[in-house]
Amino acid sequence: MDKIQSLTGMQDLYDDGSSDLSSNFFYVERKIKEIFINYRLSEIRTPILEDIRLFSRSVGSSSDIVNKEIYEFNDRNDKKIALRPEGTASVIRSVIEKKLDTFEQKLCYIGPMWRYERPQKGRYRQFHQAGVEILGITEGLPEYEMISIICSIINEFELENCTIKINHLGNQVAKDNFCNSLKDFLTPYKEILDEKDILRLDKNPLRILDSKNKKTQELLKDAPSIKNFLDPSAVKILEDIKKEFSQFCNIEIDFSLVRGLDYYSGFVFEATSSDLGAQDSFLGGGRYDQLCKKLGGKELPSIGMAIGIERLAHLIGNIVESKKNISFIIVTSNLEPKAYKIAHQLRAINKNILLDINLSNSSMKSKLRRANKHNAEYAIIIGDDELISDTAIIKPLSNELEEQITVSIKDLYSFYKKL
Amino acid sequence: MDKIQSLTGMQDLYDDGSSDLSSNFFYVERKIKEIFINYRLSEIRTPILEDIRLFSRSVGSSSDIVNKEIYEFNDRNDKKIALRPEGTASVIRSVIEKKLDTFEQKLCYIGPMWRYERPQKGRYRQFHQAGVEILGITEGLPEYEMISIICSIINEFELENCTIKINHLGNQVAKDNFCNSLKDFLTPYKEILDEKDILRLDKNPLRILDSKNKKTQELLKDAPSIKNFLDPSAVKILEDIKKEFSQFCNIEIDFSLVRGLDYYSGFVFEATSSDLGAQDSFLGGGRYDQLCKKLGGKELPSIGMAIGIERLAHLIGNIVESKKNISFIIVTSNLEPKAYKIAHQLRAINKNILLDINLSNSSMKSKLRRANKHNAEYAIIIGDDELISDTAIIKPLSNELEEQITVSIKDLYSFYKKL
Repeated sequence: MDKIQSLTGMQDLYDDGSSDLSSNFFYVERKIKEIFINYRLSEIRTPILEDIRLFSRSVGSSSDIVNKEIYEFNDRNDKKIALRPEGTASVIRSVIEKKLDTFEQKLCYIGPMWRYERPQKGRYRQFHQAGVEILGITEGLPEYEMISIICSIINEFELENCTIKINHLGNQVAKDNFCNSLKDFLTPYKEILDEKDILRLDKNPLRILDSKNKKTQELLKDAPSIKNFLDPSAVKILEDIKKEFSQFCNIEIDFSLVRGLDYYSGFVFEATSSDLGAQDSFLGGGRYDQLCKKLGGKELPSIGMAIGIERLAHLIGNIVESKKNISFIIVTSNLEPKAYKIAHQLRAINKNILLDINLSNSSMKSKLRRANKHNAEYAIIIGDDELISDTAIIKPLSNELEEQITVSIKDLYSFYKKL
Repeated sequence: MDKIQSLTGMQDLYDDGSSDLSSNFFYVERKIKEIFINYRLSEIRTPILEDIRLFSRSVGSSSDIVNKEIYEFNDRNDKKIALRPEGTASVIRSVIEKKLDTFEQKLCYIGPMWRYERPQKGRYRQFHQAGVEILGITEGLPEYEMISIICSIINEFELENCTIKINHLGNQVAKDNFCNSLKDFLTPYKEILDEKDILRLDKNPLRILDSKNKKTQELLKDAPSIKNFLDPSAVKILEDIKKEFSQFCNIEIDFSLVRGLDYYSGFVFEATSSDLGAQDSFLGGGRYDQLCKKLGGKELPSIGMAIGIERLAHLIGNIVESKKNISFIIVTSNLEPKAYKIAHQLRAINKNILLDINLSNSSMKSKLRRANKHNAEYAIIIGDDELISDTAIIKPLSNELEEQITVSIKDLYSFYKKL
């Protein structure tokens, strides 16, 4: 019978140490969650599917996400449905729907996202992001909290060669003035620009600063800088952050930094690593005070970030997580249930131990081989003789000098409790 | 501007203690993961989307899932895609694809699943399941491991009024003989049966034992029992399990227990709670030794279970998780970054503490109110005076007898480290 394959661009991940990227993925996910908990962020889980209008209205018509990347389909009622391409729009949709759009909240999420574009090396159709959204608080401390979280991530994973780039897109007036000035500067050079950038000239000229075209990049060296349009208070935030946090991470003020989504205004940031190649950013975000109103809610000052889990998993080295690990070996002719029951009771006694019961019919030798492969500290062995005499064998595996002993089941429980 | 709503039958979940079900959901998810780790199960994460043929071929043409419930759509290339309705088929598809279908493995998963049927109370279009699959090991110890995991879940959540029902569907010969005998018994009564059950008579008469029709149930009282078709070894497994595990949970041998999916054979089980009403099962599974070959892989003896996360969340009472919780309050005129930096450093010193930094511009009084609402044990307060003198105020919130003190930043770090 022919085999059914997984769909293009969608991966199976195994947390068994067999593949580095795959195990790192789970490790990153666990550690990010721990960091989020320590910042007292509350997890929010929005559905995987959304009305497609949510994204055309939020991430903006000039963003790549809506133009070509969104994974969409028609449901049985011919309604246009999207597999979410990012997390922020759904979070804001949810707080509006639940009438929470006047409250201060610190939220986080972690989960799969989709893009439809042709998969490339390291870019999958189903990928994963973690994110933070701080809602209901105007510019100030939330900006520091974002940078603090980023530093904690970089330090937790001991990432080297990282830079946190920060910029400020100004208030609406400053942003508009800068956009107009940039448009005025670029319009005479229209013939040099890519088709994509010519379209952006009218829709969102800021995004041209992101152009990968070398001629455009050359041209932009003489373009007006956002710096000259900013309030002193905006520049001060950038300088304060650089001053206070440079001790923890490498921080760089980059006045050409813009973000790929239309909804950002004010403070924006990105963390990059020179170990990642051309697409060097693994995390980014910024303030988006207008989004909630744009989606039909109240005025809700907001700031957020998204973290690429696969990218982080790629950046970290080989991970060895160590939890105490004991192997339980049953070698009886037909008293398995009685022997198994002892293992069940051990588990309840000490929940900090990984107890691996070898369930196969293989030989004692092969079971011990497996225990050694898993780096088990001890093997607990129970055979017919032990069951009859109510005893068990404790065999040390990590310490060659220690000898194996036979103990009563009662003593086995005390031994296990103290492990 | 009109508001965009979430799609029918898809929930937003918040882990903030605001809604009981929602917070319980996250609690159940965390605890289940802990239990899985202690059984040394390796997590596998398969994609949300699959080729629809995977499910029509695995869960079987007579199962409700394929007949009406599957959430399917055509992608841009007119390929039929399914949002996965359950986890087992994807796990087996993955081990075949990765050529792991000759190995012993203990896998677990947790994640969202979909059904298209009209949502009802407590039944959503996007719901969540955790699952265990033990692959490559024939009947025996894996059966005990399944029951042991179920007992651990019931005990961990302190569930009352639960029963683990177990049955054995026999080997293929016994199953076929029983099906024929059941068909012979029921055929004369065709006019009493539901339309659905008449269809099942040819496709999979076992499923008629699940009928909700009262007349059919009455009729089945005199029907042949699987018990009379089973090998003594199959009956012994049921009796051994009842004998050894009844000490931990209520276990019942139920010869009328069948499972909703076609691929089960051999040992099957279900955990029910009388607190759940008519649809009283929150967990179920069984052995499915034929599935891997049916999907194009090798012979791979397998057993698995799936757990309904929303159902478990509904069953458990009010959960209070306690992690030490400190509130950090900044009240300076314009030295926020310097004050924030102290909080950032505290976080790195002791990762076991939830440090909530109040980020808003509200008054000291309102910030303290929030700290009390969160049951913070202490508030650490930093204002202009403290910043100038390099000190901080530690204000006890949970112990009224303890007085607030002003300490140097160095002493604050020692205090925080020891918390």
